[in-house]
Amino acid sequence: MKNNVSIGLLGLGVVGSGVVKLIENRQEELVNQLGFGVNVKRVLVRDLEKERDVQLAQTALTTDPNDVLHDPDIDVIVEVMGGIEEARQHILEAFATKKHVVTANKDLIALHGPELQDAANRNQCDLFYEASVAGGTPILRGLSDGLISDRIQQVMGIVNGTTNYILTKMDEDGVTYESALKDAQDLGFAEADPTADVEGLDAARKMVILARLAFSTNIELEDVEVTGITNIALNDFEYAKKLDYTMKLIGFAKYHDQHVEVSVQPTFISVNHPLAAVKNEYNAVFVDGEAVGSTMFYGPGAGSMATATAVMSDVIAVIKNMQLGVNGKGFVKPCVDGKLAPPDQRFGQYYIRLNVKDEVGAFATISELFNQMDISFERILQIPSSKYEQAEVILVTHKTTLKKFEESKVKLENLSVVESVESSYRVEGDGNE
Amino acid sequence: MKNNVSIGLLGLGVVGSGVVKLIENRQEELVNQLGFGVNVKRVLVRDLEKERDVQLAQTALTTDPNDVLHDPDIDVIVEVMGGIEEARQHILEAFATKKHVVTANKDLIALHGPELQDAANRNQCDLFYEASVAGGTPILRGLSDGLISDRIQQVMGIVNGTTNYILTKMDEDGVTYESALKDAQDLGFAEADPTADVEGLDAARKMVILARLAFSTNIELEDVEVTGITNIALNDFEYAKKLDYTMKLIGFAKYHDQHVEVSVQPTFISVNHPLAAVKNEYNAVFVDGEAVGSTMFYGPGAGSMATATAVMSDVIAVIKNMQLGVNGKGFVKPCVDGKLAPPDQRFGQYYIRLNVKDEVGAFATISELFNQMDISFERILQIPSSKYEQAEVILVTHKTTLKKFEESKVKLENLSVVESVESSYRVEGDGNE
Repeated sequence: MKNNVSIGLLGLGVVGSGVVKLIENRQEELVNQLGFGVNVKRVLVRDLEKERDVQLAQTALTTDPNDVLHDPDIDVIVEVMGGIEEARQHILEAFATKKHVVTANKDLIALHGPELQDAANRNQCDLFYEASVAGGTPILRGLSDGLISDRIQQVMGIVNGTTNYILTKMDEDGVTYESALKDAQDLGFAEADPTADVEGLDAARKMVILARLAFSTNIELEDVEVTGITNIALNDFEYAKKLDYTMKLIGFAKYHDQHVEVSVQPTFISVNHPLAAVKNEYNAVFVDGEAVGSTMFYGPGAGSMATATAVMSDVIAVIKNMQLGVNGKGFVKPCVDGKLAPPDQRFGQYYIRLNVKDEVGAFATISELFNQMDISFERILQIPSSKYEQAEVILVTHKTTLKKFEESKVKLENLSVVESVESSYRVEGDGNE
Repeated sequence: MKNNVSIGLLGLGVVGSGVVKLIENRQEELVNQLGFGVNVKRVLVRDLEKERDVQLAQTALTTDPNDVLHDPDIDVIVEVMGGIEEARQHILEAFATKKHVVTANKDLIALHGPELQDAANRNQCDLFYEASVAGGTPILRGLSDGLISDRIQQVMGIVNGTTNYILTKMDEDGVTYESALKDAQDLGFAEADPTADVEGLDAARKMVILARLAFSTNIELEDVEVTGITNIALNDFEYAKKLDYTMKLIGFAKYHDQHVEVSVQPTFISVNHPLAAVKNEYNAVFVDGEAVGSTMFYGPGAGSMATATAVMSDVIAVIKNMQLGVNGKGFVKPCVDGKLAPPDQRFGQYYIRLNVKDEVGAFATISELFNQMDISFERILQIPSSKYEQAEVILVTHKTTLKKFEESKVKLENLSVVESVESSYRVEGDGNE
């Protein structure tokens, strides 16, 4: 048994610096928990000369990945460099040299998780990635250990802090999307190019990771239906409030009758649902299990030190496994075959807002169409429109299939009394149905 | 290595039945995860003839604890009988015969946790008790594994479903304490004798368990200051709303400068705090870590199947440890010495409601008193009282010490302009301070 474990870092950015600081500040606790200390031996960086706010010997830094990956003293590689292909190659190389890997790289795990897990298993190495979803919130370990004996039926997540911040500002301050985005960028919650966040892609990656773990099945990124937040009208926030909803970008993953569905979309969610209280840059994942019922994991979705705690919980899990001689089991082995749910097997409630000609029989025509489609309503709201001789009609359906709802939208567009379908969103109740 | 693990149950009540059902329904998943099945071999019951809704061979039941504790095939004892002394003796006996123990018994762990943990360690046996706090919510594993690399600074919990249900009804429906309690009893959320719940004792037990785990230190039940919910005036809910607070029974545990404080009391909490959204019988634990920031674990605090999932997550952890040959590490070994924080080291904001003579200079007299005590205010509300020539004065202090606040209350009672101190509560902000 070793009396000190050396780790190698790939990358020394926001998360990498947090890991170095956490290891420095927590030596005493680490010795308490593990019986010995942890040190950062080598760190792969792009620029040796860059000024950094962490204490590391200059000799620890290197621009050559082999100095980290092939150092015989190093047992655990922590990949916090980001990007896909280079990181993937380094991780495969690490497994080939029998080193364990902890990564915070959601993009990589979403795209190549199963391949990397296979490589880890073949080499009896650990691969952990708690930091890849919801930053410091221990959701992956919650799913893989805490709820291990249950059948997870559904996972709903607010898993992107940038969009949650923007939607919170639009909701609470009544500002436009553009203004809220600028605010988020000024505060460092959104990047200069916010595309991956605001188009829902980042959330989709995290939902792929959550769905794989929750349902022990394989899901690919292209299986996820994604709608971002760039087209949300401020109007819809007002109607949401009138109807006791709030708007959130919700990642939705469901397993039923061997069918899997995973999607990310702006969603009307009841103000009484615990996810409605998740504000600003915070993340939360709401899990429905057959036996346990509803649980929720809430926490910071990003941040240097918060994410570093998730990385370090993985590093400690690896080291404990090393002491026990039981590495190589990972979070999950996909073992259940799931088919993608077709639209007639996707169930939900939906909100739709229509611009309608303000004339006798208009509402009857619309009602008749939904009646033919076998769709009924939980709520109906008609208000005069600011447009001449038009009215706004807002409908919230009872549970129906996505297929029927999408067909209804097409038919509505073709009705002469309907000027336009202004918007439509998925709807979630208070979580107690 | 075994190809089947036998467990022995002590008790076959609400939680015990849930465990039997969960094992029955999850054999396939258990085989998937562990490589073999789990069976319930013997069950200690009080009455062999009682009708039960679980499928067990009549020969599995016994009224003799030795049939369970000394069965050589049984590796894991699941204690779900409740009570203190009998359960304690059985668990000590189980360790003496080298059997691992999983218990849902919060009363026992709060009172005798350290003794039982010592016995487990001496015998290299596991002792797990995830189900003892917040039912199905995997909070103990979250603290012990997920946040392992962090220093936990504070834990706030809504850890009693009965009182949370009662307070939710009082808040939302404006009904009295007595009426809400009756409602809870009718729905099975409160027992016929609700004392342990409504006086805060049950919450205190859970906070002891959480505090031990969060701070790796030893806390005894008598160290907890406890106030129940029986004296809450409906009035205070109205004032809470006016000031954007809601009332919750909050278990509060804090570690700072080697000082520990643990308390349970009705608390005004900002409507923007995530705990404010925890309603009805639900539980949640809000954790502040030095590095991670704020995280929250939410879920059902009770229920047969929900609690059974927590028990089974422990059973599976025990079995994995058995396969790995690494039992006997438990959740925690207390390792930090903490002194109880004296009242001048306990900091908080406080709400106080006074009945004051409606005369010139009354408010100035009160202000001067607080000024002398070096206590300043975040909010002040004065409204006419229904009582003749009196006014109600409501104050929310800035952060001060419990000592100063308690002294001020005594001094206020002695002021001639103050008719009475009607109520006072601890106050929590929105969690973003």
